[in-house]
Amino acid sequence: MKSETLPQLDVELVGEMLLGKWKDIRLATRKICEKPEMWQIPGLTHHEHRQRVLGQLKTLVAEGATSYGFPKIAGGNADPGGSLTVFEELIFADPSLQIKYGVQWGLFGAAILYLGTESHHKELLPKVINLETPGCFAMTETGHGSDVANIGTTATYDEQTQEFVIHTPSRHAWKDYIGNAALHGKAAVVFAQLITKGENHGVHAFYVPLRDDNGNFLEGVGGDDDGIKGGLNGIDNGRLHFTNVRIPRTWLLNHYGDVDEAGNYSSPIESKGRRFFTMLGTLVQGRVSITGGVTNAQKIALTIAIRYANERRQFPSHTGEEHVLMDYGRHQRRLLPALARTYAQAFAHLELLEQFDEVFSGRNDTDSTRADLETVAAASKALSTWNALDIIQLSREACGGQGFMAEHRMVGLRADLDIYATFEGDNNVLLQLVAKRLLSDYSKAFASPDFGTLAQYVVEQVGDVAFNRGGLRGLAQKFTDFGSTARSIGFVRDEEHQHQLLTDRVHTMIARLANELKHSGKKDPVEAERMFNRHQNDLIMAAKAHGELIQWEAFTSALKRIKNPETLKVMTWLRDLFGFTLLEENLAWYLMNGRLNSHRAEAITEYIDGRLLGRLKPHALDLVDAFGLSEGLIRSDLAFGSESKRRETLKKAKA
Amino acid sequence: MKSETLPQLDVELVGEMLLGKWKDIRLATRKICEKPEMWQIPGLTHHEHRQRVLGQLKTLVAEGATSYGFPKIAGGNADPGGSLTVFEELIFADPSLQIKYGVQWGLFGAAILYLGTESHHKELLPKVINLETPGCFAMTETGHGSDVANIGTTATYDEQTQEFVIHTPSRHAWKDYIGNAALHGKAAVVFAQLITKGENHGVHAFYVPLRDDNGNFLEGVGGDDDGIKGGLNGIDNGRLHFTNVRIPRTWLLNHYGDVDEAGNYSSPIESKGRRFFTMLGTLVQGRVSITGGVTNAQKIALTIAIRYANERRQFPSHTGEEHVLMDYGRHQRRLLPALARTYAQAFAHLELLEQFDEVFSGRNDTDSTRADLETVAAASKALSTWNALDIIQLSREACGGQGFMAEHRMVGLRADLDIYATFEGDNNVLLQLVAKRLLSDYSKAFASPDFGTLAQYVVEQVGDVAFNRGGLRGLAQKFTDFGSTARSIGFVRDEEHQHQLLTDRVHTMIARLANELKHSGKKDPVEAERMFNRHQNDLIMAAKAHGELIQWEAFTSALKRIKNPETLKVMTWLRDLFGFTLLEENLAWYLMNGRLNSHRAEAITEYIDGRLLGRLKPHALDLVDAFGLSEGLIRSDLAFGSESKRRETLKKAKA
Repeated sequence: MKSETLPQLDVELVGEMLLGKWKDIRLATRKICEKPEMWQIPGLTHHEHRQRVLGQLKTLVAEGATSYGFPKIAGGNADPGGSLTVFEELIFADPSLQIKYGVQWGLFGAAILYLGTESHHKELLPKVINLETPGCFAMTETGHGSDVANIGTTATYDEQTQEFVIHTPSRHAWKDYIGNAALHGKAAVVFAQLITKGENHGVHAFYVPLRDDNGNFLEGVGGDDDGIKGGLNGIDNGRLHFTNVRIPRTWLLNHYGDVDEAGNYSSPIESKGRRFFTMLGTLVQGRVSITGGVTNAQKIALTIAIRYANERRQFPSHTGEEHVLMDYGRHQRRLLPALARTYAQAFAHLELLEQFDEVFSGRNDTDSTRADLETVAAASKALSTWNALDIIQLSREACGGQGFMAEHRMVGLRADLDIYATFEGDNNVLLQLVAKRLLSDYSKAFASPDFGTLAQYVVEQVGDVAFNRGGLRGLAQKFTDFGSTARSIGFVRDEEHQHQLLTDRVHTMIARLANELKHSGKKDPVEAERMFNRHQNDLIMAAKAHGELIQWEAFTSALKRIKNPETLKVMTWLRDLFGFTLLEENLAWYLMNGRLNSHRAEAITEYIDGRLLGRLKPHALDLVDAFGLSEGLIRSDLAFGSESKRRETLKKAKA
Repeated sequence: MKSETLPQLDVELVGEMLLGKWKDIRLATRKICEKPEMWQIPGLTHHEHRQRVLGQLKTLVAEGATSYGFPKIAGGNADPGGSLTVFEELIFADPSLQIKYGVQWGLFGAAILYLGTESHHKELLPKVINLETPGCFAMTETGHGSDVANIGTTATYDEQTQEFVIHTPSRHAWKDYIGNAALHGKAAVVFAQLITKGENHGVHAFYVPLRDDNGNFLEGVGGDDDGIKGGLNGIDNGRLHFTNVRIPRTWLLNHYGDVDEAGNYSSPIESKGRRFFTMLGTLVQGRVSITGGVTNAQKIALTIAIRYANERRQFPSHTGEEHVLMDYGRHQRRLLPALARTYAQAFAHLELLEQFDEVFSGRNDTDSTRADLETVAAASKALSTWNALDIIQLSREACGGQGFMAEHRMVGLRADLDIYATFEGDNNVLLQLVAKRLLSDYSKAFASPDFGTLAQYVVEQVGDVAFNRGGLRGLAQKFTDFGSTARSIGFVRDEEHQHQLLTDRVHTMIARLANELKHSGKKDPVEAERMFNRHQNDLIMAAKAHGELIQWEAFTSALKRIKNPETLKVMTWLRDLFGFTLLEENLAWYLMNGRLNSHRAEAITEYIDGRLLGRLKPHALDLVDAFGLSEGLIRSDLAFGSESKRRETLKKAKA
């Protein structure tokens, strides 16, 4: 290919798209992350690292970066999307800082905000914002992680003293993995079974002081340190337990359920199950912002790996000059689809963030928009956190031994992000929630009377759902016959047909599963459980396919906004690479279900290897440049010419 | 299923099979690893960790564990397989200890042994064995990792003084990532371009002293510390460079090439390329033993995850009692195929280890057996190190938050093993070597005259090859028609047909690639390179398929040795799960190539989910018990009942 025929990518334009709606806050947070005192230092002990990150939190307070998510009456900016944006960008400094910010201002602060009421906001939130009260989000217990509804901690109302008694009944019910619990937390939002007049009203949240100003546990409170973890060692995760700790009645965060002085329980939501999921739903921001965070980590890793691949030379070519790694077909196969996937994920996340802000700003807050948001966030968090681990790993492997050096960031990012796959909802459990929603949409659409009894096995979650932004997509049009015999990529290359193929797979999988599970619903519960477990893997695969469809759609929506034809051309190739990779990964399904014949299926792989990779290779550097990451954010010289400089010494030696 | 109908696995019998030929050395090494002073302590600084591991090396010397690989004239045991066995088991103590053992007695010692001659053995090896001379294996340079033939360090013979002058011409040519280089190494085997009388005879190895007894670099030697890595921080990796360092002529390790006093070069191997690969081939033991090591790490992770999955309960069943994780279909889907793969890998490794010992003991040492050994070792190392990362990761995720705690080992093992994917040969480069061999076999079988010119693009490596233990497998019989319309798993379930399907895929892929590359050979070199890169990914996929076939065959051979019918039954299910998973992963290929029709393809997944997982689930605990790992080797209480003990506190609280 001659260079004059290459389309030019408008790096600035694409960069602007990736910055999205909260561009100013994003850039301002990056400025903070560029300060050396905010950087992760590899090799600190966990004690040193924890102290460093605590200090960094104070810097964030001083920079005014901690108030976005809170209402004006608490001294906040009432900008929910802005708050998540700060979280997302902090990963450039140190994932430990990001998550400690998330614990303090995302989980602890947001629980007070969304589960509490005005008096809590006025009294408690200012000290959350300014870090006077470092706090914990004490939900998970050693014995119950994914299954929050069955936690063991109790909050029993004592009418005599008008207090709640917070109590941990067993070692099994200790709060565990709680950020800020080992050292810094002065208070906690504790999730416990609310019991009054002998009746359990399910899990509610309570504000519970933990430590005095000297850092000593208050009476009845105990705990220990989770110690060293696989990553995020700048956070003092720990365990907490409570022995008949008494708190005032008014420290129940009473937005969704209250107890009056006489011990009478009331709630605006009658159904216990629905109340529980509504309360948990207010905490969706963690899942939303995690995707933004890990996408940034992927950008770091790919910037390093792709720039290095364009400088590093290994094995001589026929001219005697060594090839750059990016010349190798296998190297392109590893890095370019990862780049396409990262773009898809980035665009999907920016949509999700706006969706979140619409709901949480109140501009478009309905049961339906909340349910959609929760579904998309669940899919997004699961897919993106696994993508991040895979893509950081392949980037590190693509840099060989250099990639293993801590100074080049990738191993540290991977270690820190490992837990993202199972915290804030285990990825498999989240995908099951998504599948539940898709089955429920399907069931409503087809009004199958037997379906309800079975859906309960797909994780309990109740909510109003319909065919809409979060759930099952309608097929754009009558299905095109891709199974015909002509050997041609033309049909599949077309955007609408990619969409059809991806959508149809989700539909068909869900329809088939709904049918299978419906039949078993007539049988006994043992058989129903057996049938669910027989198909649990398929359910999760269907949810994954749905999440990928959302990403593909977001990428495609982004293309609609590009007016520059050359940029559009390159970005369309990148979207096609993403779409084709999805088809290729699931080729057996398309073949078995007659959606593609063998010739067309083969043409997909041929088109990737024979066309798309070669077309995109010359644009790979521009595509990572569009991430717009400075040296202070990346901090690996592999991305800033160190290999070329070393080669200069080689040339000099030869000269 | 009623328990009385379950076949019983003979745990002891299977355990014996897994211990293999060097059982006594294996068990003795495990005893050493069970000592607390040999254990990795999470959270040490890398300075502390390095000191600790150095101390552990001294313990190994005191225990007599360091002499197996060396000849009797050096005070060794002349037991090459035994030496690798020690290496493999040390991973139970600490992967850093394993690799530091590998650096000292595997790489440094083995290079002197296999590249040097008797005088070197007598003079140098005793001090290697007893650690009087901690040493480095200085091959890799910052600028050349995979492409060793093009390293920059030179060893120029000076006839005047009868010395070699070792010199590093540029920063690009510094030795890098060298274990023992930052601190402990007193000497090194340095790989350098041997130049005499103005002619470069290619890469040779030289014995070069580095430091005096006070640990200071000798004149002309310099270097620095690689610092903190993603794992293996108990090893002092570093960089080395040499400024006209003079060593006696006799410190050329002269087994494969020598220089006389007058500067005349001679070698028993005429071809420079073949000499180079023969020298590198003597170092195959690293690749062999790595597979054994990572298999042990997989055993640790799976023992933890599977035992935990059988105790940990989450989400209530219809009876009110919570399900154990192992009840869930998705959990079975994650863990049981990983268990099957680990068994396949273990059996394949035990075969490989015997194959290695036959060659290196001299009992069956021919060009052909060496070439086979190198091919199988390359495939095995690549597949097993990636498997280990995947399987340790899924085990950690299957343990949720607990899995992320350093005390439960899995995050540490994963971090340490990360580099295994790119050291001792980058996995992608190794698989390319395997593909080269398969193409070469194919070419010889079909006597294609044009093939040779193209094969050179598949990494330069020369060796005698034929259809044999390392290379292309013959199809067992006339190909059965799997493509017929009957919907039945019967055919595919049959062992012979599994074998056919797996073998046929390798054959067909290689034949097709040979054909593609042959055509391009007639074109110009630019086009030939383009064609190679166009198919590089396919080559690597074909090599991977070949490696998996070897594992399947080894598992199947192991079944032949089981006389106990019930044990055979369970183990056959496990082998079938491995085989079926391989077919499922490549289902699109089988469909596109008419090897399976849609009905049979669907039946494969149905058979896995509907039959095999359910059959194997009750045996999962026995299958990890057969690994025979004590508490001192696993050191995570998740594998020793901690979850059940916690649940006891829950029951007491409820009572």
